[in-house]
Amino acid sequence: MTQYVYDFTQGSKDQKALLGGKGANLAEMTKLGLPVPPGFTITTQACREFLQIGSEPGDLRVQVTMALRQLEDQLGRRLGDRHDPLLVSVRSGAQFSMPGMMETVLNVGLNDASVKGMAEETGNERFAWDSYRRLLQMFGKTVLEIPGEVFSDAWDKAKSAKGVTGDLELDVDDLKEIVEVFKAEIKNATGSEFPQHPREQLDLAIRSVFQSWNTDRAKLYRRRERISENLGTAVNVCTMVFGNLGDTSGTGVAFTRDPASGQAGAYGDYLANAQGEDVVAGIRNTLSLDDLRELDPASHRELTRVMRRLETHYRDLCDIEFTIERGKLWMLQTRVGKRTPAAAFRIAAQLVDEQLITLDEALGRVSGAQLALLMFPQFDRAAEKTLLTKGMAASPGAAVGKAVFDSETAVAWAARGEQVVLVRRETNPDDLSGMIAAAGVLTARGGKTSHAAVVARGMGRTCVCGAEALNVDPVARQIKVGDTVIAEGDEISIDGSTGEVFAGAVPVVPSPVQTYIESGVDAALAELTAAGGDGGGDGETAQLVKAVDRLLTHADQRSRLAVRANADTAEDAVRARSFGAQGIGLCRTEHMFLGDRRTLIERVVLADTGDERDAALEALLPLQRQDFIDLLTAMDGLPVTIRLLDPPLHEFLPDKTELAVKVAVADATGEVDPKDRKLLAAVERLHESNPMLGLRGVRLGLLIPGLFALQVRAATEAVIELTRAGKRPKLEIMVPLVGSVMELHLVRLESEQIIKELVAESGLGDKGLDIPIGTMIELPRAALTAHRIAEEADFFSFGTNDLTQTGWGFSRDDVEAAIFAAYLEKGVFTISPFETIDADGIGRLVKIGAEEGRKTKPDLKLGVCGEHGGDPESIHFFHDVGLDYVSCSPFRVPVARLEAGRAAAAGTPTEEI
Amino acid sequence: MTQYVYDFTQGSKDQKALLGGKGANLAEMTKLGLPVPPGFTITTQACREFLQIGSEPGDLRVQVTMALRQLEDQLGRRLGDRHDPLLVSVRSGAQFSMPGMMETVLNVGLNDASVKGMAEETGNERFAWDSYRRLLQMFGKTVLEIPGEVFSDAWDKAKSAKGVTGDLELDVDDLKEIVEVFKAEIKNATGSEFPQHPREQLDLAIRSVFQSWNTDRAKLYRRRERISENLGTAVNVCTMVFGNLGDTSGTGVAFTRDPASGQAGAYGDYLANAQGEDVVAGIRNTLSLDDLRELDPASHRELTRVMRRLETHYRDLCDIEFTIERGKLWMLQTRVGKRTPAAAFRIAAQLVDEQLITLDEALGRVSGAQLALLMFPQFDRAAEKTLLTKGMAASPGAAVGKAVFDSETAVAWAARGEQVVLVRRETNPDDLSGMIAAAGVLTARGGKTSHAAVVARGMGRTCVCGAEALNVDPVARQIKVGDTVIAEGDEISIDGSTGEVFAGAVPVVPSPVQTYIESGVDAALAELTAAGGDGGGDGETAQLVKAVDRLLTHADQRSRLAVRANADTAEDAVRARSFGAQGIGLCRTEHMFLGDRRTLIERVVLADTGDERDAALEALLPLQRQDFIDLLTAMDGLPVTIRLLDPPLHEFLPDKTELAVKVAVADATGEVDPKDRKLLAAVERLHESNPMLGLRGVRLGLLIPGLFALQVRAATEAVIELTRAGKRPKLEIMVPLVGSVMELHLVRLESEQIIKELVAESGLGDKGLDIPIGTMIELPRAALTAHRIAEEADFFSFGTNDLTQTGWGFSRDDVEAAIFAAYLEKGVFTISPFETIDADGIGRLVKIGAEEGRKTKPDLKLGVCGEHGGDPESIHFFHDVGLDYVSCSPFRVPVARLEAGRAAAAGTPTEEI
Repeated sequence: MTQYVYDFTQGSKDQKALLGGKGANLAEMTKLGLPVPPGFTITTQACREFLQIGSEPGDLRVQVTMALRQLEDQLGRRLGDRHDPLLVSVRSGAQFSMPGMMETVLNVGLNDASVKGMAEETGNERFAWDSYRRLLQMFGKTVLEIPGEVFSDAWDKAKSAKGVTGDLELDVDDLKEIVEVFKAEIKNATGSEFPQHPREQLDLAIRSVFQSWNTDRAKLYRRRERISENLGTAVNVCTMVFGNLGDTSGTGVAFTRDPASGQAGAYGDYLANAQGEDVVAGIRNTLSLDDLRELDPASHRELTRVMRRLETHYRDLCDIEFTIERGKLWMLQTRVGKRTPAAAFRIAAQLVDEQLITLDEALGRVSGAQLALLMFPQFDRAAEKTLLTKGMAASPGAAVGKAVFDSETAVAWAARGEQVVLVRRETNPDDLSGMIAAAGVLTARGGKTSHAAVVARGMGRTCVCGAEALNVDPVARQIKVGDTVIAEGDEISIDGSTGEVFAGAVPVVPSPVQTYIESGVDAALAELTAAGGDGGGDGETAQLVKAVDRLLTHADQRSRLAVRANADTAEDAVRARSFGAQGIGLCRTEHMFLGDRRTLIERVVLADTGDERDAALEALLPLQRQDFIDLLTAMDGLPVTIRLLDPPLHEFLPDKTELAVKVAVADATGEVDPKDRKLLAAVERLHESNPMLGLRGVRLGLLIPGLFALQVRAATEAVIELTRAGKRPKLEIMVPLVGSVMELHLVRLESEQIIKELVAESGLGDKGLDIPIGTMIELPRAALTAHRIAEEADFFSFGTNDLTQTGWGFSRDDVEAAIFAAYLEKGVFTISPFETIDADGIGRLVKIGAEEGRKTKPDLKLGVCGEHGGDPESIHFFHDVGLDYVSCSPFRVPVARLEAGRAAAAGTPTEEI
Repeated sequence: MTQYVYDFTQGSKDQKALLGGKGANLAEMTKLGLPVPPGFTITTQACREFLQIGSEPGDLRVQVTMALRQLEDQLGRRLGDRHDPLLVSVRSGAQFSMPGMMETVLNVGLNDASVKGMAEETGNERFAWDSYRRLLQMFGKTVLEIPGEVFSDAWDKAKSAKGVTGDLELDVDDLKEIVEVFKAEIKNATGSEFPQHPREQLDLAIRSVFQSWNTDRAKLYRRRERISENLGTAVNVCTMVFGNLGDTSGTGVAFTRDPASGQAGAYGDYLANAQGEDVVAGIRNTLSLDDLRELDPASHRELTRVMRRLETHYRDLCDIEFTIERGKLWMLQTRVGKRTPAAAFRIAAQLVDEQLITLDEALGRVSGAQLALLMFPQFDRAAEKTLLTKGMAASPGAAVGKAVFDSETAVAWAARGEQVVLVRRETNPDDLSGMIAAAGVLTARGGKTSHAAVVARGMGRTCVCGAEALNVDPVARQIKVGDTVIAEGDEISIDGSTGEVFAGAVPVVPSPVQTYIESGVDAALAELTAAGGDGGGDGETAQLVKAVDRLLTHADQRSRLAVRANADTAEDAVRARSFGAQGIGLCRTEHMFLGDRRTLIERVVLADTGDERDAALEALLPLQRQDFIDLLTAMDGLPVTIRLLDPPLHEFLPDKTELAVKVAVADATGEVDPKDRKLLAAVERLHESNPMLGLRGVRLGLLIPGLFALQVRAATEAVIELTRAGKRPKLEIMVPLVGSVMELHLVRLESEQIIKELVAESGLGDKGLDIPIGTMIELPRAALTAHRIAEEADFFSFGTNDLTQTGWGFSRDDVEAAIFAAYLEKGVFTISPFETIDADGIGRLVKIGAEEGRKTKPDLKLGVCGEHGGDPESIHFFHDVGLDYVSCSPFRVPVARLEAGRAAAAGTPTEEI
């Protein structure tokens, strides 16, 4: 028979899938000999089977009976016995934490008889009747699904009838009366009496926990947090212990280190003479652990011993729930604790110092996502702030600006130089221009996968979404939050890393981690010392900087993937190098022709004759050469991959519709400029209905004579000039959008000829003008025929953006906003495939390309450029596939370095915190 | 050591790659004991190595010496001996026939001494000196690269000096003088004497054949005919035999059956007292083989015996070259002969009757391409025609119309109802509108891969290209061909199946094969009998119809692939069924909303509210249901695959630029219709920069509530209605553009619910409303995750058009004309991947999809729709991959049936003829 029930003495912390997080850790603590109230766990499998068949599976009831009997024997008490009854709590506990989402029933086992036994045994009659009252209330609401107000109203009525306000002012008789009222309400609502049989209470409570897996709010939570629907919850049945048995009792929660700052030393809240729910409800002010030491030195000593044991055993920050019953400490829960990004780095470094974990393991305790958060500018922690509300942290950063309520205003105000924050109930594609214009986006509705969140993350805009307390009134152009009103033009501040929304302009300070990344530890510490706010360079922030440095340095030593940057200008290259980039993996040469220089390419495209075109190209040569000289100088000694012109040519031409309108209106009202008419004809001729699949990349190079040749010439001349000057330029030429080996062959043939001639002319002789020629692998066919393409390539660089576009058939520009929000909502994606590489589909193409390319050339250099190169999860995938480098935007370089190290140290990414 | 030289007694016909076609067949005939002059073949490998290293590889010279010595020993004569000299011919012979493209040198071995020995031995001094003269002329031109005019001018001068016009009027002394003149010209041109040493002559001739592989015209020919550059040619060194030794000598070419009509019985030309080059030159009128029977019965008998032997051995039509030397027959060449499409079918059927081949083998002798040609309307063979010239047969069909010289005229004249043929020197993308308007396209320049040819084939326009004799003058608007002038508006007729261009309007007759396909053998024969021109139904054409029927019937029996049609209307379905379609593999439901019904979809797209949208959808229901009823009725009992709406929604909206111009002009000049302004806003909102990668297919279905539901409802209601009426509708529902199993899952869930409800309402009960739900596999990711998608699919239909678009990153609309002509010219493609499936790249996706889909569901039905489904080579690929059916346009159904049978009979396609 299947084992559905595990005594706490049977399980271990590695059995979370079966016993849930809570159950597994209770078992682990029991095994460690820590003071856990005895009990047992009903498995998630039992829950799954219950939900499927609608009733208790197999001999579950029998197994519960056996476990219960064992518990009773061990304690010498019986569930709901009329003398000294055993009472139990029944709590949910799923594999992944879903705080507050599912049900709990305490004091199971109390009834009209056992309440008296309890009163006798504890010598505290009021306590017994209060416990019975709590059971009725909780059971009524949770198990019998009676609205909570029925009980709270009756409770309030009893107090006002007596003319008191505090709960404690009700005496035993009042409570006895209320018990009768509650029982009557239950009878009234359900038509049946409250079940007096203790075992019936237990069975109903277990059922109710099972069923709570499928409440709407639990389902919503899982969708948001990407937790599978099919896991089910375990049920923990645990002997009740009481923190509300007088002044020598109490209850608390604690962390083994400060989860906000990472500061070493236990940290927690304690409430004397209270039950756990009282702590959570926040009715009374809690005490600190130091207060507990004074109040009850023995329990504090025991608690400290337990926490130290847990840290040594779990080798990580733990959080715990405990209860002291008349001076005896009981552990009700523990788990590895969540923490802020700063705490994650500091704690990881501390644990290494304490020799609890290795540096490799420390890398497993932090993540690139955390590092990225630490690098954003932050609101000044010292500044005074007025917190309006808190929404979801949808896209990180700290944005300050005037509140605006529509896109037009956002665009108009931004155009006159104002910082704005776009506030909407929710966004839709029409809001795109406003989102682009704004410093940040704030919405009242929608989760982390809503349109606003997806789009904002895509463009790196700070975003807080789903701040449901906001009452957004776009007509009145204002927000109400409680009594506060924010009108259009009032300043607000939003923190995309925490979800906080502040009234007014909160001062923003640069991130010390960012300073460290750019300028090193000493500079960051000096800045801190100068600012004076952090203990002269040895405070919390200084320790954070040192911890980041230590882990990042170790990551660099460990990583097998090199990290390069995508950079198109010398400035970008300098910044990337300061961020630790080991070269440029992608220089988009088309970006060198934006702005004023756009017309240069326009002339090439519009040339009527070959001579005109050659002249237009000739004019480009000195500019392009200087571009390359600057770039190679900035990256001297490191590889620089130049991608030959890639985008559709019409990107360099005027917009077709605008031009057509201009010509037609001029036609209708006066005289058309003949130049415009000619231009329009050209634009119409070159117009493509799907430019992303049209004349671009290598196709341009093969169809426009001299275009690629010009670029190769400019780059080679730059290398020759720098080599003459004693520099060490390391140029690599990359051909875009290759689908067939023949395309690459033709470009290579022409390029090699040009290089050969220029080298011969230069008089440099044979000395080291080694210019590898490689290709993007960015079309499915390129990946599928990589074994052929490798014959002509010195390196591959996977263009996973385009590979995703064509592999999925998604135009990034078009569909991301319109379709992706819906697809995330419907569960087609768990994350946008442009954000994290789709390992099953697009990743498989990368794998095929890598493996088959190396079959042809075992030492083929393999890299990836495009935004996946800076995405943590994707980096682990690229590591596993065996690539040599990733290339990403300069700002992501540190993240990529850390993740590359983590991938090498562990092989698999740890869960993001 | 590598064997570079093979005696004719060593090789066989299967060694074409090594010995070339000519060498392999000479060896085969030698092996058969047929009278082949002794000789040897130098391999293609020797040629390849020669071309690579620039000199004779390894011990090639030694091997030639050995082979020559063996030849001399066998014949008892020595090369160039002063008494009875052995003379040899040196001919090229590549793996694939390249007629006239490479060099030949005859009479090698003659010099000042041996010419006398030859004169003595043959007793014919004039013949000997004439042979020497020919050697000097041919060697001078071919080996020494002296312009041919140098020799022909001298020859003409000699004749005019003597006052004669015929070659035969020059006597021995004249010839001796000419020999001196030729030798002087050689000395003059090269600075050296004509090489007297026979072995030197031989070595130089061999070298010159090697080198002729790389002449410009040979390269051009190979590019046109898609022959690899890397094969090289073999060299055949063969004992000379002479057809010009008097009246008992002669030379001829023959076919074992008529290659034009397929009529049984030998067929050929003979010229007495002549050498092969005289036959080719066409100076004298040739005799028929019947004439030869009278002239030289013994040789005729021997020739007939040889030809019968060859047919029995090769089991196919052979063509041969032969020479009779003083009454002794010598075979100089044989090969399997080229033939017309009609001949191919008739001969294949005859060979089956003669029990030389099986019906399976007969299928290998014909092709779908040939059948397609036979199905086109043809010019009336009986009509009088004025042939202007012949170009390349670029896109089949018979087109008649008025000659026009630019696109504007073509469009204008076509608009007023005239048939036009667009005549251009060459076409470019600007000619597209004219090509669409014209019945046919004729160009003076460019080959089968030129812009005109590629585009015309793509749109099924008749096209003749590269008719170089045409002098096209677009300014004067006329063509000159020799003295004939065709002015704008004059009628011309072009035959895209033969390349012929006729003056005037040639009457077009329907193809009897087409009649057979549509209406069966009896109808076609009756039509022939009625026309009276074909021997009362038993003439050549009747035999052709019967042969096609026989092979097509066998193909249907053999094929494992079913053939369905792509059809969107009941008319198309009826036609497809008459062509033998076994169902509809693709009904593009968006085509049902063209024309007047376009606005119906527009209303859905533009709906401001859910209610408006529902109302718009509701209006579609009865129309769509009737569409499906009609279609299912036409295909009663056969499967009909309905594809849910696929195209980008903006296809149903006005053009953005046009509308913007309209609104702007109205704005500038008067009042704008507010409806237009609202429409423009909607069009702008829905505009996509890459609609092919945007909101289409299943994405539409998931984003527009009720859209797919409407279609599923309409289709199911149609099935219910027909089932009630006792029909056998076999509906299949297909979901387009699925990239992830979740998309299909969601549509399937909704569809099954609708079907279930409708069936329940219908009262039909459980009886057989089996409606499979499947998906297109048309995105690379779908193929790569087919094992997952198969979980939710009852069938896959590979959409290889879109798979090619996304796999290659080519927008079919945009790039085909602009890029493909260039890519074909540069050798990136050998054929457009939209025409024949790219087996290495896109085909690999199909293979992955098929294999992995079947891993999940072993009996998953697999098909292909899209144009590759009608392409012969692609069909063989789909057969090999193990698909269950192909679906193609109705007109291609017979072609697909034949090719499906051929694939099953043989496994691999034979070379197209």
